[in-house]
Amino acid sequence: MKDEMNNNDIAGITDDDEQSLMLRSIYKGKIEVVSKAPVRTKDDLATIYIPGIIEPCMFIAKDPENARRFTIKSNTVAVVSDGSAVPGIGNIGGLAVLPALEGKAVLFKELSGIDAFPVCLDTQDTDEIVETVKHIAPTFGAINLEGISAPRCFEIERRLKEELDIPVFHDCQHGTAIAVSAAVVNAFRFLDKQLTYVHAVISGAGAAGAAVAKMLYALGIRDIVICDSKGIINATRIPEFGEDKLELLEFTNKEGLTGGLDEAVMGRDLFIGVSKPGVLTEKMVRSMADDPVIFALASPEPEIQPDLARGAGARIIGTGKPGQPNQIDKVLVFPGIFRGILDAHAKEITEAMEFAALHALAGLVPAGELSEDHVLPAVLEGGVAEAVARAVAEAWALRGEG
Amino acid sequence: MKDEMNNNDIAGITDDDEQSLMLRSIYKGKIEVVSKAPVRTKDDLATIYIPGIIEPCMFIAKDPENARRFTIKSNTVAVVSDGSAVPGIGNIGGLAVLPALEGKAVLFKELSGIDAFPVCLDTQDTDEIVETVKHIAPTFGAINLEGISAPRCFEIERRLKEELDIPVFHDCQHGTAIAVSAAVVNAFRFLDKQLTYVHAVISGAGAAGAAVAKMLYALGIRDIVICDSKGIINATRIPEFGEDKLELLEFTNKEGLTGGLDEAVMGRDLFIGVSKPGVLTEKMVRSMADDPVIFALASPEPEIQPDLARGAGARIIGTGKPGQPNQIDKVLVFPGIFRGILDAHAKEITEAMEFAALHALAGLVPAGELSEDHVLPAVLEGGVAEAVARAVAEAWALRGEG
Repeated sequence: MKDEMNNNDIAGITDDDEQSLMLRSIYKGKIEVVSKAPVRTKDDLATIYIPGIIEPCMFIAKDPENARRFTIKSNTVAVVSDGSAVPGIGNIGGLAVLPALEGKAVLFKELSGIDAFPVCLDTQDTDEIVETVKHIAPTFGAINLEGISAPRCFEIERRLKEELDIPVFHDCQHGTAIAVSAAVVNAFRFLDKQLTYVHAVISGAGAAGAAVAKMLYALGIRDIVICDSKGIINATRIPEFGEDKLELLEFTNKEGLTGGLDEAVMGRDLFIGVSKPGVLTEKMVRSMADDPVIFALASPEPEIQPDLARGAGARIIGTGKPGQPNQIDKVLVFPGIFRGILDAHAKEITEAMEFAALHALAGLVPAGELSEDHVLPAVLEGGVAEAVARAVAEAWALRGEG
Repeated sequence: MKDEMNNNDIAGITDDDEQSLMLRSIYKGKIEVVSKAPVRTKDDLATIYIPGIIEPCMFIAKDPENARRFTIKSNTVAVVSDGSAVPGIGNIGGLAVLPALEGKAVLFKELSGIDAFPVCLDTQDTDEIVETVKHIAPTFGAINLEGISAPRCFEIERRLKEELDIPVFHDCQHGTAIAVSAAVVNAFRFLDKQLTYVHAVISGAGAAGAAVAKMLYALGIRDIVICDSKGIINATRIPEFGEDKLELLEFTNKEGLTGGLDEAVMGRDLFIGVSKPGVLTEKMVRSMADDPVIFALASPEPEIQPDLARGAGARIIGTGKPGQPNQIDKVLVFPGIFRGILDAHAKEITEAMEFAALHALAGLVPAGELSEDHVLPAVLEGGVAEAVARAVAEAWALRGEG
């Protein structure tokens, strides 16, 4: 990504640029921290500062559960990133990712009333990230990991889930997987085809690709082939694989296909792209099964432009782009997931909660309203976060006690 | 402190308690994170999320200085505590300190427009605290360390100052020292006595006591005796001292006094208490020099109640209590200090900036308005933060380049 960045001429920022950024409300940041209590009188001061703080502090010292009643912990999420895998940009580090995390905090507040705060990490070391997040956890009711590259993200999430008593959710994996899976469920419901008969190809074997593969497999899609930038994940490449890709190989590519994306897409009913703009050609689309479903989510541009895909025979097309039909974006998921977690005082997020979110999201488009251009609710449609939140909270309440 | 806490009956919180806390605006926390940008349309979404974030992210990746223009870093302070030394409570840990840090964030916003966010640490290990704060620094324009016990606070602050390129300020040391010193300057200006002739005693040799001692010494008070809970800091106790108290011994107690607070206060012009409620008796006050100045800042109650001190002959009395005359509190200092730091884009806070804050604060009470009951402006008086901020920013601008 470094080269691409240097090719763009962004060395000097002109007054016009600044003006343009200012108009778009991103000058000096997109969020602020405000007080819920006034500080006008001496009594106000005594309430919100000394001695007013002593009572709630001591309540919490006596019983940590009181933190949810007397502090922001009950409604506050950390949005944590090391900036190693920012969609559409790449590895830009823990400072430059801040505008992205602020944007996420805006969406948390506007879509589900959650107070989210950006935690930018100046390290990309797995151990240091785990330790750091552990050490700042008390303020938060949940942790949203964001834009951390594979395979480190898998270990970081697993270890934090083990060590913390609040939910930890890597949105780039599971948020994306839930949104994609809901779209897949509805697309094949519309096409009246059972998922067990669907042959799928996934372009991209990073955080999102791996999570999508696992979720689709759990939904019943048994024939999945995944490509990374070097081609199909297959057994001849085992020597180069880490644990994450070995795990993918265990349940994908059962026919032992080799080759590149050309070979992988042939005859498939479903293409899911979580990789790079432009990698899917019209010729490849023509080689797929009849009426293929193409969800091309690369950022900032999809793996194939919708008009090209349509021209090559695609039946249902979705991308991540705002305003296009079938926008598939984790924005449909994370506000509701975290709202549900916080409302339920959940201590972790289980697979059952993730599947509950998926089906709640899919269920928001009634069977009679499904169409080629409408497999998911619009991102800003009212009620999405609420429905997902309710399903997630219920799934937590219904969890097994064993 | 554990014992005191258990003696209070706070095991069960009744509905009345909850109601009472709710009325006092502290139920579910005192701050929230809000969006500065609306998210109503697809265009809003494209602006604050993808692809809108790509441009500012890349500006910052190109030049980290751009973070101050395009993110919240320009106006955001971390309020960091491990809960080891919470005023009036003691060591309650990193979760139970959250209400105090929220209160501080409220004051930052209401008094100087700063976005402050509570960072509660679940560790009290010096190395882990230093590493954690380093790793989350990118989001912030400055770090406010808060309620960290001595002597760990000295090393933590020193190492963070060395390693970070943003200012680090342990408010419990320097904020308190600046407020106290401004009060001392004005008290003896009113009494028309030069500081070089003042004999001072400080009760409390923790974070605040040490910082107050150093600042008063730098202001010209050459005769200072400090007591900790075991008595006067003196050479016979060297075997029990760590580095911090050895450092105090270098410039205090030059006469080699031994004994307790009784012996320490005798004949002194100035008593400063940053220790425990009630430790200063009327008898001790009577043993002081004529017209003594008593600044008794223990929390939640002072070392001596003002009416008792007055009855025993004290001329000027100040405490930390809201609403009483001469309230001496770091609230007079930190909003302006951090406003000045952020406005000046300062990379560190120098001693010159601290002294500039002190003199700006003292200067807010004109000589003609000084009285026994008015040595400092009121905490909520308009213009305090602005005056301190201006002085701090000017001191940064005027710093030597060598």
